[in-house]
Amino acid sequence: MVTQNIVYAHSGGVTSVLNTTASSLIATARKHQLPTLIAQNGILGLIHNKLYRTDNLSSQDLERLAQTPSSVFGSCRHKLPHHHDDPRAWDGFFNTIAQHNIDCIIYQGGNDSQDTSVKILEAATQRQIALKCYGIPKTIDNDLYGTDFSPGFPSCAKYLCTSIAEASLDTRAMCKSSTKVFIMEVMGRHTGWLALATAMASRQQQQGPHIILTPEHPVDVQQWLAYTDHLVKELGYCVIVASEGIINSATGNRLTETKQTDAFGHGQLGGVGAQLAQWINTHLNYKTHYAIPDYLQRSAGHLRAAIDVYLAKQLGQRAIELVQEQADSCLLGLQRSEGDWHIIPTSLHTCANREKPVPLEYFSDNKMHISPLGREYFQPLIAGEVYPTYHQGLPEYFDASQLHYQQQPQPII
Amino acid sequence: MVTQNIVYAHSGGVTSVLNTTASSLIATARKHQLPTLIAQNGILGLIHNKLYRTDNLSSQDLERLAQTPSSVFGSCRHKLPHHHDDPRAWDGFFNTIAQHNIDCIIYQGGNDSQDTSVKILEAATQRQIALKCYGIPKTIDNDLYGTDFSPGFPSCAKYLCTSIAEASLDTRAMCKSSTKVFIMEVMGRHTGWLALATAMASRQQQQGPHIILTPEHPVDVQQWLAYTDHLVKELGYCVIVASEGIINSATGNRLTETKQTDAFGHGQLGGVGAQLAQWINTHLNYKTHYAIPDYLQRSAGHLRAAIDVYLAKQLGQRAIELVQEQADSCLLGLQRSEGDWHIIPTSLHTCANREKPVPLEYFSDNKMHISPLGREYFQPLIAGEVYPTYHQGLPEYFDASQLHYQQQPQPII
Repeated sequence: MVTQNIVYAHSGGVTSVLNTTASSLIATARKHQLPTLIAQNGILGLIHNKLYRTDNLSSQDLERLAQTPSSVFGSCRHKLPHHHDDPRAWDGFFNTIAQHNIDCIIYQGGNDSQDTSVKILEAATQRQIALKCYGIPKTIDNDLYGTDFSPGFPSCAKYLCTSIAEASLDTRAMCKSSTKVFIMEVMGRHTGWLALATAMASRQQQQGPHIILTPEHPVDVQQWLAYTDHLVKELGYCVIVASEGIINSATGNRLTETKQTDAFGHGQLGGVGAQLAQWINTHLNYKTHYAIPDYLQRSAGHLRAAIDVYLAKQLGQRAIELVQEQADSCLLGLQRSEGDWHIIPTSLHTCANREKPVPLEYFSDNKMHISPLGREYFQPLIAGEVYPTYHQGLPEYFDASQLHYQQQPQPII
Repeated sequence: MVTQNIVYAHSGGVTSVLNTTASSLIATARKHQLPTLIAQNGILGLIHNKLYRTDNLSSQDLERLAQTPSSVFGSCRHKLPHHHDDPRAWDGFFNTIAQHNIDCIIYQGGNDSQDTSVKILEAATQRQIALKCYGIPKTIDNDLYGTDFSPGFPSCAKYLCTSIAEASLDTRAMCKSSTKVFIMEVMGRHTGWLALATAMASRQQQQGPHIILTPEHPVDVQQWLAYTDHLVKELGYCVIVASEGIINSATGNRLTETKQTDAFGHGQLGGVGAQLAQWINTHLNYKTHYAIPDYLQRSAGHLRAAIDVYLAKQLGQRAIELVQEQADSCLLGLQRSEGDWHIIPTSLHTCANREKPVPLEYFSDNKMHISPLGREYFQPLIAGEVYPTYHQGLPEYFDASQLHYQQQPQPII
């Protein structure tokens, strides 16, 4: 018996095109008359039987959903045990899918989330329950294997490129008698994809960012300070982008792990931006400003990359088509070929629990900027602008109070 | 003799519409055949005879200039003494204006800059030199007297409103199993205009920001923590915006002034965002994220407010018209009347060296949010979107290498 009742869920950090995939997926499923629910807070909604209806959403709702960043359904950070280690931890999950006759889960997320997809399939096999799982890649970190890029990354990169281009102009204007160094701390605990992408804002040496620090290349603090000093003397100012997870080559530790605890014994909050600025202040005595966009970078729905929005929609559509085709469980990877991307089913194991670093050949010789090959990779990702509609000066984002739980079991088709 | 050779200059922090005024001013002066130079780095360019030509800029250059944030001519932070206190400090300035036959200065800036305008007029009087000075308001801080708002503020406010709306969606999505409090630190050392403006993003209680901390209302830390805790328990999360200059009611000092020095004896960098996050971590034990947009907020040319761009242009045009009309020296204030703004000449003394706080009636009863009257003030300022053109994924901003110094004295007309 094929019921084909679908649940869509996602977990991990949000992006500005996550709802875009959800919207496209709901619309496509509706077209094919495939009942679709959405889990509140990813796997948690499946464990606790908190599933949202989608049949009450109008086309206008879906359009608004598509342009809304973050996730209106909620995300989560929750690591499930393997079923064979702790089967009881899975009881809630299997109760929920039984109650709603779910036989298909579309799970969107990064390496942790796809680890969850793999565990779901293992658990279903062990309980002898017919369940398929289709993984859709998603992470602003862009560190997934099995896909050319991860949806969410291009928009975040575009926002950061634009922001650092603007902040560079600001620093240049002020440097004569005020701020000489500007630092932007960007996301990326283990990889430098976002940081290196900002190099695209620098099309000539005068334009920042001038220095890019990534986890791929541990930072020799003295050397970096000397280079910063050199650039300030040469250009009048220096603009630096640093991944939050950069490593001090002297200690082998992340910069933020070396920080002192405060008076209460708590680890000091604040990351590499403050730390780098403090070093510049102390050793070079240049006035320094730093920015930490934090969540602003990954939820910047007001400036999204065209290819990101386009492929986020395509992935939602293709996932439903795979359900209908009764395809095997898989990850929907993106493959680049001749300036275009194709969605290629690949193994969920490909990307679970692994982090893809930036290839070394994408870096310049000094490891602190981009190579021509790197530019080739990033250029098509940041091209094209997609804007939301506005009302009274603010983007028209989806109002989550329109969401309602599915109370009744889904009918069996 | 009326020569009407003009220099335009500006100083202080930049905005995303400063070049817009410059562009409009150059185009209007050209139409009226009034020779116009632009000082590099504001008053410093006048002191050191570093003036840029404008006659080499094409219409296309001027269009690109108009959409470029920050200042392509450079700004400065430099306080001139009164002429009667130190006449020698003015020699460079008067040499420059003599060499280029300048008899008119258009000076754009905030309270410090208009203090410079006033001092220029004093000095010229004491040296018996005929010189006029027209001040154009500018500051993202919006703390100028003599004008309904300051160009630069609406775009910055719009950017911050949009950003906090987006970060609120992010925090809401994560709060179930991760971050429960999000803090955004915004500019405003002495006034809370920008912080309070972000309240516009919150159209219902569920939408952040939920708490706004401003220098106008010293923060009772225990009370604020209790309220934050209450909101997290009620809504699941809490979004806070804080001006960088907020005051601790227990000490009467700015929060950032109470911070410890580091191992080198240097004052710790990092502002209220980190401090507030640390308190929440320590006392409430909620996972907290914070963003510091810093320069990103005032140079966000990729999202500007319609009225800001429109009036920035009008001010450039009107300043040149006043030169042509041989009007008295003045500040070009903006007066709001029936949903429209008029440019009204007012005294330069009105805004020099004074900071206009947010009116108390713009705050809600608990002093941590906005009142209906406040909404009325901010609404028309953030309405309407202006975007730059893009090329290969990045805004097309003016290339400063096209600027050239004026080598020869200006001809006398």
